[in-house]
Amino acid sequence: MTPGVETTTGPLGQGISTAVGMAIAEAHLGARFNRPGHMVIDHFTYVLASDGDLMEGVCAEACSLAGHLGLGKLIVLFDSNRISLAGSTELCFTEDVEKRFEAYGWHTLRVPDGNDPASVDIALISAEEETERPSLLLIETHIGFGSPGKQGSFKAHGSPLGTEEVTATKKRLGWPETAAFSVPEDVRDHFREALGRGKDLESQWQQSFYRYTRSHPELAEEFRRVMSGNLPQNWDHAFAEFIPEKKPQSTRKTSEIVLQLLAQRVPELMGGSADLNPSTLTWIKEGGDFQNPSSHHKAIQGAVGGPWGYEGRNIHFGVREHAMAAISSGMAHHGGIIPYASTFLMFSDYMRPSIRLACLSGLHVIYVFTHDSIGVGEDGPTHQPIEQVMSLRTIPNLTVIRPCDAAETAQAWNVALTHTRGPTALILTRQDVPPISREPYAPASLLEKGGYILWESSSVVPDAILISTGSEVHAVLEAGRALSKKGHAIRVVSLPSWELFEKQSSEYREQVLPSQVKVRVAVEAGITLGWERYVGLHGAVVGMKGFGSSAPAQLLFEQFGITREHVVSSALALLNKKKST
Amino acid sequence: MTPGVETTTGPLGQGISTAVGMAIAEAHLGARFNRPGHMVIDHFTYVLASDGDLMEGVCAEACSLAGHLGLGKLIVLFDSNRISLAGSTELCFTEDVEKRFEAYGWHTLRVPDGNDPASVDIALISAEEETERPSLLLIETHIGFGSPGKQGSFKAHGSPLGTEEVTATKKRLGWPETAAFSVPEDVRDHFREALGRGKDLESQWQQSFYRYTRSHPELAEEFRRVMSGNLPQNWDHAFAEFIPEKKPQSTRKTSEIVLQLLAQRVPELMGGSADLNPSTLTWIKEGGDFQNPSSHHKAIQGAVGGPWGYEGRNIHFGVREHAMAAISSGMAHHGGIIPYASTFLMFSDYMRPSIRLACLSGLHVIYVFTHDSIGVGEDGPTHQPIEQVMSLRTIPNLTVIRPCDAAETAQAWNVALTHTRGPTALILTRQDVPPISREPYAPASLLEKGGYILWESSSVVPDAILISTGSEVHAVLEAGRALSKKGHAIRVVSLPSWELFEKQSSEYREQVLPSQVKVRVAVEAGITLGWERYVGLHGAVVGMKGFGSSAPAQLLFEQFGITREHVVSSALALLNKKKST
Repeated sequence: MTPGVETTTGPLGQGISTAVGMAIAEAHLGARFNRPGHMVIDHFTYVLASDGDLMEGVCAEACSLAGHLGLGKLIVLFDSNRISLAGSTELCFTEDVEKRFEAYGWHTLRVPDGNDPASVDIALISAEEETERPSLLLIETHIGFGSPGKQGSFKAHGSPLGTEEVTATKKRLGWPETAAFSVPEDVRDHFREALGRGKDLESQWQQSFYRYTRSHPELAEEFRRVMSGNLPQNWDHAFAEFIPEKKPQSTRKTSEIVLQLLAQRVPELMGGSADLNPSTLTWIKEGGDFQNPSSHHKAIQGAVGGPWGYEGRNIHFGVREHAMAAISSGMAHHGGIIPYASTFLMFSDYMRPSIRLACLSGLHVIYVFTHDSIGVGEDGPTHQPIEQVMSLRTIPNLTVIRPCDAAETAQAWNVALTHTRGPTALILTRQDVPPISREPYAPASLLEKGGYILWESSSVVPDAILISTGSEVHAVLEAGRALSKKGHAIRVVSLPSWELFEKQSSEYREQVLPSQVKVRVAVEAGITLGWERYVGLHGAVVGMKGFGSSAPAQLLFEQFGITREHVVSSALALLNKKKST
Repeated sequence: MTPGVETTTGPLGQGISTAVGMAIAEAHLGARFNRPGHMVIDHFTYVLASDGDLMEGVCAEACSLAGHLGLGKLIVLFDSNRISLAGSTELCFTEDVEKRFEAYGWHTLRVPDGNDPASVDIALISAEEETERPSLLLIETHIGFGSPGKQGSFKAHGSPLGTEEVTATKKRLGWPETAAFSVPEDVRDHFREALGRGKDLESQWQQSFYRYTRSHPELAEEFRRVMSGNLPQNWDHAFAEFIPEKKPQSTRKTSEIVLQLLAQRVPELMGGSADLNPSTLTWIKEGGDFQNPSSHHKAIQGAVGGPWGYEGRNIHFGVREHAMAAISSGMAHHGGIIPYASTFLMFSDYMRPSIRLACLSGLHVIYVFTHDSIGVGEDGPTHQPIEQVMSLRTIPNLTVIRPCDAAETAQAWNVALTHTRGPTALILTRQDVPPISREPYAPASLLEKGGYILWESSSVVPDAILISTGSEVHAVLEAGRALSKKGHAIRVVSLPSWELFEKQSSEYREQVLPSQVKVRVAVEAGITLGWERYVGLHGAVVGMKGFGSSAPAQLLFEQFGITREHVVSSALALLNKKKST
């Protein structure tokens, strides 16, 4: 074995898919940092996987991609005991797993007895020697091994064996029957040896890294930096270089521009989309394609350009949203990389299990979700997110940001790069939105507070507050001006991120949304559920009540009443009601 | 070809997975209704699938299961043009698809030229002749066929060819260049013939069905009934037969009992779990195992019992939540079956894309989600749903019901059976909950209104309303009594289904939750976001602020403050605040 081993496991196919991300990280960092005679990053990624893992779709997606990429240092130990929680795999899982993995381009091996360490060891050596393909070791085992009554039974899956059966098992295995915990001497000795072996390997690596520091001081410094998770000096000058367009632009397009500037200064930024680069615009131009270096690469359509191989920073995930999310988590777990993953907001649904685990694990992953509303237009309701923004907001520790214009989009990327203790989801438009002239309005830097007073018609306590996010902010600003002309004191609040806003002091939140102002209208081209948090029982929410439809975007906004006129009439209805009570 | 052909397609692997459900429905109904010489249900299910579909995990799950089940009448035409939206499949998808499907146990065929109808036809005949295994026809095609500039290019995927290129294409194909739409005569003739062929086939089927009606009148009547979607006479006597336990019982256990009673009276009820029968308790005992009839079935662990074959009503989906949901949609699309699908609530995340499509399509599917909160206990935060109930509520046209006791659970199943224009999700506990003695409390039949006054301390306008769902209702009732002893007029509202409640008249809703009562506390062991809909800006929500933890359930409820004491103190704080203002 080699130092720097990564191990992982996890529920329902997540572990194996996350491991593919770790192996990608290792391959990429190796290509970036290793030099002849100086292998600073060179480790295997081992996975313990179960029958259940191999049934999951996310595992299928990730393993197909791993085969395509030729991740030779990925080794999966498939604990094939042919038993899952509910019974024998003969009920539901009789495919030829080895053949499937061969079809993916994997190296496969079968170990007929998982209780024979020597044969497992031989198989591991063979897997480690195979450098061109990932390896699957199908290791036949017995669940509840040694238990006279439950070996090979699904009763040993979800429940403890029970006192009697534990005693019987110990007896059968020739273990002391009384001790609740006992570690056989040879096992203890073996693990104790590992302490020394580990120390030796670490010290070898330290010596090797010292030599690397001498021969490649700048690379060594950079390696230390990326592994520490610190951003490079002056990385945020990228934002100074960014000049927002004066004409309308989709926020996905702005994001593309900002990403190019950031990618130049933040080399650890790396990612891609689930087969949507031309739509989500999440390529790093000339950043290279992350691909098996020994694969053919002449004139391949859709290649981003730049180097072709593990040094490439653009990952082509294929139409595999779920694996993309799990792989991104794996890259973040590994360290040395800030991964981003992109698809249409609609298809974030496919990614939820992995997004949630990233939130639970506090991983620095950036999701770029474009085509964020009925603004998608003709593709129709299967492609129009309605409930996605709100349902992403329900996931603990996920920072969701839906910027309203170019300036807020740049700020959103700033948060995404600096918020390291959990993932950030950027929610971007397909359609153009006008830039907001920041002279009469508040600066977009206030996005870091999650919500802020974008504009108000006067400095008195407002008669009504209009709250909005993303592309709807523009109609709301127009509505605010129209209401102001009718003599009402109006405040417009841009609320791109609920999570950031709720982290602010209660004083700040009270300043933006004073309790005394009961007339409140929230506007978002998504489900209305949830907005009562800011408008209360007696406010109004202008949003979607059901699924979208197929038509040009502008027509849809009109048909579903997400318009300046509807915002004005909703606010007037509340203002009149207030007057009459 | 055979009459009664089903065809389907859909985005991102959904179509192919849904088709597996259609083929399951056909196989099951065939086993149920066909008799020697009388094939009333006997059709192929054809799928048009793309490279993108085959990359999706849900497709992998469904196709592995289809192979296991030996669904010989399922035929997938894989339109292999090696181009997806973002470029060539050489970027990400180089696996051997035929070999993969052979590993699943499929019959595969390759058609080298998809523009040669004769060879497609021959392949289809061969697929139709193969009765033991599903068939995959890998048909090589060219995207943008005939376009001089865009054939074989990903530019022909997401965007129209454009006027010039359309003209050039017509020229190249020898078509009239001026007509915007034109159908060649031989094509028109061919399709017109289909009218007659279809009529003939339908008339043959009608004749055959007439003969069936004569020889098997009861079966014919039953076939008509299940295909019409009407429930059998007296089906709801099942509820009269149901006697709730007097001792505490988990709602999943109650659900199991109710399901057995319903299954006896509603033979079209059919489903299963994603490898969780012993936990979700969603088997139909002695209802048979839906399996390939020619497969071995001696002493297989986890088999439910009863017949083994396509007549079985228990589907063993394996650890494949996403495919389970898509397959259930396919069965509902087909008709003749009321499908249910079960897993832990946590893993509903895996199913969201298919749940959403079921909602959009208005399908009668029943999801049974158990282990619905931190009540899961020691399995810890990866298995404890926090945001799932609320995020399911965000999906349009999904009826979510979280019953609080045995009586509400039975009523929830009643709704699930009778609400046919969209899916219903039943949210059930792992842990025991006490039965609510319905004498002093309102009857559980009010569940059909979504929310109702469960109890109040007096008939005056309440000082405070406590609102809750599921297992938390019991702590809330205790809190209500405690507050009442302190001299407050308290109302407890059970709100198991927001969607049903919101369908009621505004008068009814006002009666349950009078506007004038501002002191409101909502209690649910899930994320608090969303509950402001019922408690407003100034109410309190007792719920979860972040992820759960691993510990015994009771300890978790205490640690996270979802207790009677916390409900009492939250209500008192609001009551005192009100007094002081």
